Amino acid sequence: MDFLTILGLAAATITTISFLPQMLKTWQTKSAKDVSLVTLITFISGIFLWLIYGIYLQSLPIILANGVTLVFNFIILWLKIRYR
Amino acid sequence: MDFLTILGLAAATITTISFLPQMLKTWQTKSAKDVSLVTLITFISGIFLWLIYGIYLQSLPIILANGVTLVFNFIILWLKIRYR
Repeated sequence: MDFLTILGLAAATITTISFLPQMLKTWQTKSAKDVSLVTLITFISGIFLWLIYGIYLQSLPIILANGVTLVFNFIILWLKIRYR
Repeated sequence: MDFLTILGLAAATITTISFLPQMLKTWQTKSAKDVSLVTLITFISGIFLWLIYGIYLQSLPIILANGVTLVFNFIILWLKIRYR
Protein backbone atom coordinates (compact mmCIF):
# COMPACT_ATOMS: atom_id res chain seq x y z
CA MET A 1 0.00 0.00 0.00
CA ASP A 2 1.48 3.40 -0.94
CA PHE A 3 1.80 6.43 1.37
CA LEU A 4 -1.15 8.27 -0.21
CA THR A 5 -3.52 5.31 0.31
CA ILE A 6 -2.41 4.92 3.95
CA LEU A 7 -2.88 8.70 4.49
CA GLY A 8 -6.40 8.58 2.97
CA LEU A 9 -7.40 5.52 5.01
CA ALA A 10 -6.05 7.15 8.21
CA ALA A 11 -8.00 10.36 7.45
CA ALA A 12 -11.19 8.37 6.71
CA THR A 13 -10.84 6.23 9.86
CA ILE A 14 -10.14 9.19 12.18
CA THR A 15 -12.99 11.41 10.86
CA THR A 16 -15.35 8.40 11.05
CA ILE A 17 -14.57 7.39 14.65
CA SER A 18 -14.56 11.06 15.74
CA PHE A 19 -18.37 10.94 16.10
CA LEU A 20 -18.30 8.13 18.67
CA PRO A 21 -17.44 10.41 21.66
CA GLN A 22 -20.33 12.80 20.74
CA MET A 23 -22.69 9.82 20.52
CA LEU A 24 -21.58 8.44 23.91
CA LYS A 25 -21.63 11.90 25.56
CA THR A 26 -25.20 12.61 24.42
CA TRP A 27 -26.26 9.08 25.41
CA GLN A 28 -24.76 9.49 28.90
CA THR A 29 -25.72 13.09 29.68
CA LYS A 30 -29.17 12.78 28.05
CA SER A 31 -28.74 16.42 26.97
CA ALA A 32 -28.21 17.77 23.45
CA LYS A 33 -29.54 21.32 23.53
CA ASP A 34 -26.16 22.80 22.47
CA VAL A 35 -25.90 20.45 19.46
CA SER A 36 -27.24 22.11 16.29
CA LEU A 37 -30.15 20.22 14.68
CA VAL A 38 -29.60 22.07 11.38
CA THR A 39 -25.92 21.03 11.35
CA LEU A 40 -26.88 17.39 12.01
CA ILE A 41 -29.51 17.27 9.24
CA THR A 42 -27.30 19.13 6.72
CA PHE A 43 -24.26 16.99 7.57
CA ILE A 44 -26.28 13.74 7.23
CA SER A 45 -27.57 14.93 3.81
CA GLY A 46 -24.00 15.64 2.65
CA ILE A 47 -22.66 12.31 3.95
CA PHE A 48 -25.54 10.55 2.16
CA LEU A 49 -24.36 12.17 -1.13
CA TRP A 50 -20.77 11.03 -0.35
CA LEU A 51 -22.13 7.49 0.10
CA ILE A 52 -23.88 7.60 -3.31
CA TYR A 53 -20.63 9.01 -4.77
CA GLY A 54 -18.68 6.07 -3.29
CA ILE A 55 -21.21 3.55 -4.64
CA TYR A 56 -20.92 5.09 -8.16
CA LEU A 57 -17.10 4.99 -7.90
CA GLN A 58 -17.28 1.45 -6.40
CA SER A 59 -14.80 2.71 -3.80
CA LEU A 60 -15.01 0.51 -0.68
CA PRO A 61 -13.14 3.04 1.58
CA ILE A 62 -15.55 5.87 0.65
CA ILE A 63 -18.58 3.57 1.08
CA LEU A 64 -17.38 2.22 4.45
CA ALA A 65 -16.26 5.56 5.94
CA ASN A 66 -19.45 7.39 4.94
CA GLY A 67 -21.73 4.45 5.74
CA VAL A 68 -20.41 4.25 9.31
CA THR A 69 -20.37 8.08 9.68
CA LEU A 70 -24.02 8.06 8.54
CA VAL A 71 -25.00 5.47 11.16
CA PHE A 72 -23.20 7.37 13.98
CA ASN A 73 -24.82 10.67 12.99
CA PHE A 74 -28.28 9.14 12.64
CA ILE A 75 -27.90 7.88 16.23
CA ILE A 76 -26.75 11.38 17.37
CA LEU A 77 -29.76 12.89 15.52
CA TRP A 78 -32.11 10.39 17.20
CA LEU A 79 -30.61 11.25 20.62
CA LYS A 80 -30.85 14.99 19.81
CA ILE A 81 -34.55 14.69 18.94
CA ARG A 82 -35.15 12.51 22.01
CA TYR A 83 -33.32 14.65 24.58
CA ARG A 84 -33.35 18.15 22.90
CA MET B 1 -18.72 18.54 -15.91
CA ASP B 2 -19.91 14.93 -15.54
CA PHE B 3 -22.54 13.67 -13.08
CA LEU B 4 -19.99 12.11 -10.72
CA THR B 5 -18.01 15.37 -10.42
CA ILE B 6 -21.20 17.37 -9.74
CA LEU B 7 -22.25 14.76 -7.13
CA GLY B 8 -18.85 14.95 -5.42
CA LEU B 9 -18.83 18.76 -5.43
CA ALA B 10 -22.39 18.84 -4.02
CA ALA B 11 -21.42 16.36 -1.28
CA ALA B 12 -18.29 18.39 -0.43
CA THR B 13 -20.17 21.71 -0.39
CA ILE B 14 -23.03 20.41 1.79
CA THR B 15 -20.81 18.67 4.38
CA THR B 16 -18.61 21.80 4.51
CA ILE B 17 -21.41 24.36 5.06
CA SER B 18 -23.15 22.00 7.53
CA PHE B 19 -20.84 23.29 10.33
CA LEU B 20 -21.98 26.92 9.92
CA PRO B 21 -25.24 26.48 11.93
CA GLN B 22 -23.31 24.83 14.83
CA MET B 23 -20.83 27.73 14.78
CA LEU B 24 -23.58 30.35 14.80
CA LYS B 25 -25.62 28.50 17.46
CA THR B 26 -22.66 28.25 19.84
CA TRP B 27 -21.74 31.89 19.13
CA GLN B 28 -25.28 33.05 19.89
CA THR B 29 -26.15 30.85 22.89
CA LYS B 30 -22.63 31.10 24.39
CA SER B 31 -23.11 27.51 25.57
CA ALA B 32 -21.34 24.39 24.32
CA LYS B 33 -21.44 21.94 27.19
CA ASP B 34 -23.31 19.31 25.13
CA VAL B 35 -20.75 19.48 22.30
CA SER B 36 -18.06 16.79 22.70
CA LEU B 37 -14.52 18.20 22.99
CA VAL B 38 -13.04 14.78 22.10
CA THR B 39 -15.17 14.64 18.92
CA LEU B 40 -14.03 18.16 17.93
CA ILE B 41 -10.32 17.43 18.45
CA THR B 42 -10.49 14.01 16.75
CA PHE B 43 -12.54 15.39 13.82
CA ILE B 44 -10.11 18.31 13.34
CA SER B 45 -7.16 15.86 13.34
CA GLY B 46 -8.89 13.73 10.66
CA ILE B 47 -9.81 16.75 8.52
CA PHE B 48 -6.18 17.93 8.77
CA LEU B 49 -5.06 14.56 7.32
CA TRP B 50 -7.67 14.95 4.52
CA LEU B 51 -6.17 18.38 3.77
CA ILE B 52 -2.63 16.92 3.51
CA TYR B 53 -4.12 14.15 1.31
CA GLY B 54 -5.68 16.78 -0.98
CA ILE B 55 -2.40 18.74 -1.17
CA TYR B 56 -0.50 15.54 -2.16
CA LEU B 57 -3.17 14.76 -4.77
CA GLN B 58 -3.19 18.43 -5.90
CA SER B 59 -7.00 18.19 -5.76
CA LEU B 60 -8.48 21.67 -5.38
CA PRO B 61 -11.98 20.39 -4.31
CA ILE B 62 -10.46 18.24 -1.50
CA ILE B 63 -8.18 21.12 -0.40
CA LEU B 64 -10.99 23.71 -0.44
CA ALA B 65 -13.65 21.54 1.26
CA ASN B 66 -11.32 20.37 4.04
CA GLY B 67 -9.63 23.75 4.43
CA VAL B 68 -12.96 25.50 5.03
CA THR B 69 -14.24 22.63 7.24
CA LEU B 70 -11.03 22.96 9.28
CA VAL B 71 -11.57 26.73 9.78
CA PHE B 72 -15.23 26.26 10.82
CA ASN B 73 -14.33 23.51 13.30
CA PHE B 74 -11.40 25.45 14.75
CA ILE B 75 -13.85 28.29 15.44
CA ILE B 76 -16.34 25.82 17.04
CA LEU B 77 -13.45 24.40 19.14
CA TRP B 78 -12.43 27.91 20.21
CA LEU B 79 -16.05 28.69 21.19
CA LYS B 80 -16.29 25.32 23.01
CA ILE B 81 -13.17 26.07 25.06
CA ARG B 82 -14.37 29.63 25.71
CA TYR B 83 -17.94 28.83 26.76
CA ARG B 84 -17.66 25.15 27.91
